[in-house]
Amino acid sequence: MSKKSEAVNLEARLPKGLFDTSASKLRATADMLSTIGRAFESYGFEPLDTPAIEYSDALGKFLPDQDRPNEGVFSFQDDDDQWLSLRYDLTAPLARHVAANYGKQPKPYFRRYQVGPVWRNEKPGPGRFRQFTQFDADIVGSSSMAADAELCMLAADTLEKLGVKRGGYIVKFANSRASYNIKVGSRKVLDGVLETIGLGSHAQAGKRLAVLRAIDKLDRLGTEGVRALLGYGRKDESGDFTKGAGLEEQGIETILGFVSPNAFLSSNAIEESSLKRPTGHSTSKSVALWEPADNSVSRYNIHLDTSLILNNWSNLVWSSEIGQKGVEELDTMHSLLKKVGYEKRVTFDASVVRGLEYYTGPVFEAELDSPITDERGQTIRLGSIISGGRYDGLVERFTGQKVPATGISIGVSRLLFGLQHVGRYQATTTQGPVFVLVLDRDRIDYYQQLASKLRKARIPTEVYLGESGITAQMRYADRRRSPCVIIQGSNEYSNPSGPLVLIKDLAEGARLSAEIADSVTWREQRPGQVCVPEQEMVSVVKDVLRRRKILSHHKL
Amino acid sequence: MSKKSEAVNLEARLPKGLFDTSASKLRATADMLSTIGRAFESYGFEPLDTPAIEYSDALGKFLPDQDRPNEGVFSFQDDDDQWLSLRYDLTAPLARHVAANYGKQPKPYFRRYQVGPVWRNEKPGPGRFRQFTQFDADIVGSSSMAADAELCMLAADTLEKLGVKRGGYIVKFANSRASYNIKVGSRKVLDGVLETIGLGSHAQAGKRLAVLRAIDKLDRLGTEGVRALLGYGRKDESGDFTKGAGLEEQGIETILGFVSPNAFLSSNAIEESSLKRPTGHSTSKSVALWEPADNSVSRYNIHLDTSLILNNWSNLVWSSEIGQKGVEELDTMHSLLKKVGYEKRVTFDASVVRGLEYYTGPVFEAELDSPITDERGQTIRLGSIISGGRYDGLVERFTGQKVPATGISIGVSRLLFGLQHVGRYQATTTQGPVFVLVLDRDRIDYYQQLASKLRKARIPTEVYLGESGITAQMRYADRRRSPCVIIQGSNEYSNPSGPLVLIKDLAEGARLSAEIADSVTWREQRPGQVCVPEQEMVSVVKDVLRRRKILSHHKL
Repeated sequence: MSKKSEAVNLEARLPKGLFDTSASKLRATADMLSTIGRAFESYGFEPLDTPAIEYSDALGKFLPDQDRPNEGVFSFQDDDDQWLSLRYDLTAPLARHVAANYGKQPKPYFRRYQVGPVWRNEKPGPGRFRQFTQFDADIVGSSSMAADAELCMLAADTLEKLGVKRGGYIVKFANSRASYNIKVGSRKVLDGVLETIGLGSHAQAGKRLAVLRAIDKLDRLGTEGVRALLGYGRKDESGDFTKGAGLEEQGIETILGFVSPNAFLSSNAIEESSLKRPTGHSTSKSVALWEPADNSVSRYNIHLDTSLILNNWSNLVWSSEIGQKGVEELDTMHSLLKKVGYEKRVTFDASVVRGLEYYTGPVFEAELDSPITDERGQTIRLGSIISGGRYDGLVERFTGQKVPATGISIGVSRLLFGLQHVGRYQATTTQGPVFVLVLDRDRIDYYQQLASKLRKARIPTEVYLGESGITAQMRYADRRRSPCVIIQGSNEYSNPSGPLVLIKDLAEGARLSAEIADSVTWREQRPGQVCVPEQEMVSVVKDVLRRRKILSHHKL
Repeated sequence: MSKKSEAVNLEARLPKGLFDTSASKLRATADMLSTIGRAFESYGFEPLDTPAIEYSDALGKFLPDQDRPNEGVFSFQDDDDQWLSLRYDLTAPLARHVAANYGKQPKPYFRRYQVGPVWRNEKPGPGRFRQFTQFDADIVGSSSMAADAELCMLAADTLEKLGVKRGGYIVKFANSRASYNIKVGSRKVLDGVLETIGLGSHAQAGKRLAVLRAIDKLDRLGTEGVRALLGYGRKDESGDFTKGAGLEEQGIETILGFVSPNAFLSSNAIEESSLKRPTGHSTSKSVALWEPADNSVSRYNIHLDTSLILNNWSNLVWSSEIGQKGVEELDTMHSLLKKVGYEKRVTFDASVVRGLEYYTGPVFEAELDSPITDERGQTIRLGSIISGGRYDGLVERFTGQKVPATGISIGVSRLLFGLQHVGRYQATTTQGPVFVLVLDRDRIDYYQQLASKLRKARIPTEVYLGESGITAQMRYADRRRSPCVIIQGSNEYSNPSGPLVLIKDLAEGARLSAEIADSVTWREQRPGQVCVPEQEMVSVVKDVLRRRKILSHHKL
């Protein structure tokens, strides 16, 4: 009654960009998530869960993948023909939840955290997954910059609890320990810059988005790549041409001078005076605007004084109301962070714009500073591990009234990948269960009873369920990484003064065997093996586990 | 730059059958899942995760929802036109995983557990969700009935660890405590019965499936409903007609006599002799075949001796090879369970068939015996909370070679719902964070510093981020269920001998206030409130938390 006809052709494979997750990675992830959860709860965030499927219009399409099917969202029709989508982040569902439950949440604002998978119909490629897990914290209902500052503090605290050191201004290159850097940009300041080059009108919204997404690629493409995307367009290595934003030379220079001042300062592409405020407001600080970058280090390896940066931005957008508002917001954030002692953990960087369309104010990202190498030893750009920002318009889409909101999102797999590459949350070889061998097949129930006794003592235990002999069983126990095996043949079972069990410590046995040269001695000594009365089995196994230091793991 | 035009029309709603999950339910679920995880690990199962999306052909279509779009599976096309589906269970992805990684797993078998959401395109209705969480344990590679017996033992152990008592033969009606019952049926025995009524051939596969799904509805429709579905068909309350399997009278009677012996015995619809083995093999046991059922109780409230049941089934399928093999399997399981002392926790019940098409041997389900009432006080049928069975053909679909497998699946939401209704995992009002009031808005950074001190002492703390005054802030603290609030006005801050803080215990304050009649006394006494030097804040707050017995929760 099986479907035999299918058997020949059916291939066991996963769609591209999707992967299974092993036990060791799952355990490391669970460990990391529990630390993140405690950090988020310490700030008073409460958990919420939303389903994977939402109405497509409720989620909106804010992803940067405009050339992908459904703009990067997996979508399908319900039986009433309405369009459904898999959520592409946890922020859009939160906005829907807040709007749907408006009035039921504690006022004036709602603080929630959420962890779960999201799906993006991405073009496949290394490090690009179509399902990945995010861990978000959001504050909905507060327009105060204290909320944005608090989220940066939370990001910093979380990373430090995960064992990452503060990076501060100078990038550290100690390979054994990661350090982090939190960078803050502003959509309002960017909009201000765009206004100054004549892109402020409603009709220019598409062009503004094209500029935004060009800047978002600065990390990957460098200044020249972005320059091309701001202008006519760019041909990538595969020969594919991406149409540019079509800006004129002066607009391009202004934007590049804003987002990539280092490249400009070192290449003298713009005059230093162009950064000066036209109103003649001079800076009283004596610190250097920048320090020369080590060539081996990314453009972030620059010490820019925050007050000076904000001053420069203010000069750049002096004619734009929204731009000035943006600088004011960042100035408030900066002064809050400074007073709470987080100043050196957060830098301000105009190249941080984030690709999601819905941000409206400060945008944040955190990255690990240590270089990460892949399996082939090549240095790879890990990208941001935490990102977020203010999105004051998302709830308004439903309610019609402004509900200010801001949040951060941790890329769980990417963070674990980064941490594991700098020595944290290593995929340790987890100890397997104690293993009961089956020598007399008709006594399998008796072996199950032995296992039950061990399980009752909180010792994970497995009984052999296959058909093979003792050699295969021992090999299986090794593969399962069992700390020890329980052996009871008919001799041990029918011992006149009561049943006995042999307990073999597999690691100890392997160690001792290595020291024994001849097989005669080996057979006589039976290395790592003891024979005890059955009622002593539990306590002897506990001794083995204590020796292997796995007692605490199993919470005996 | 916000999309104002959308704001008017966009409705904040979820597709039918999908729901958000609150903090208290998430916390109860996490608590329950961690107990289940420990139980599964104690049997040597290791975690695995697979993605939500798989190729549709890899999952197959084994659901009973044949009248739904894509037979109950959410499906959509990839950009290369291949069909993708959201997983409808965790078993089909496991089979794909095993087939794809054949050779990499420990041989001879692979024991994994997995927890995660699954999606079914169900017809909406009360208690019918389109996303729900399953928690599965499977043993792949073993054809031994010891594996099936072990999974029943695991199901029993897990339920007992969750605080559910053994039900055994007699259903218990103590509303404060749930008891459970594990029931085992067999697809092979059912196939044997179908063979005896002439439905054994390959050409009759569709009819066999129709019979299977009719029997699976016995719980919901009763004997007469199933009788109709086995015959011509059935019109439901809404007037919809479901076509029946089209069996003739004698076939229907045989099947009903097999799956519902109680209904038959009490209604004398079949003669007792028809249950007797034609070969004259008499039973030596003297126990009664059945005990009269209390009318208020379901048909499970019957004590049937397992050996007698298996004997009856053996008589019924004496002419069928597969049927006899099925009875043998159950007999082996029974004898194993008996010897390990689990005999009374597992009963054998022919009405257990399970709706999923892929089962090939023993099938299991566990249910809570206590009646569950909904919000309107009506008793509802909760259905099985754990189910599973042997599926020896699923991996073979890919590999072409037989890889025997068996497993169980816990319906997480349903189990939590049932347990909460009998007093376990109650949605307790979780304590909120300590709350720092903002009296002087220009000192919000200072309030953040106070919060940081509390957070460093592992006390979850929140600073007010809104715009409102002290009354609104106190109301918010109440809604957040804060244990106490920290108050520091300019008087306290500028105290000559160093800053002070007021700490108000909200519960204690409410209790004491209730005892105070006049407002003068209230103002003088400031119930539940103390004023201490700032450096004593952490230790006084810890005292409050200790009084509220939430210290251990926050692991101070």
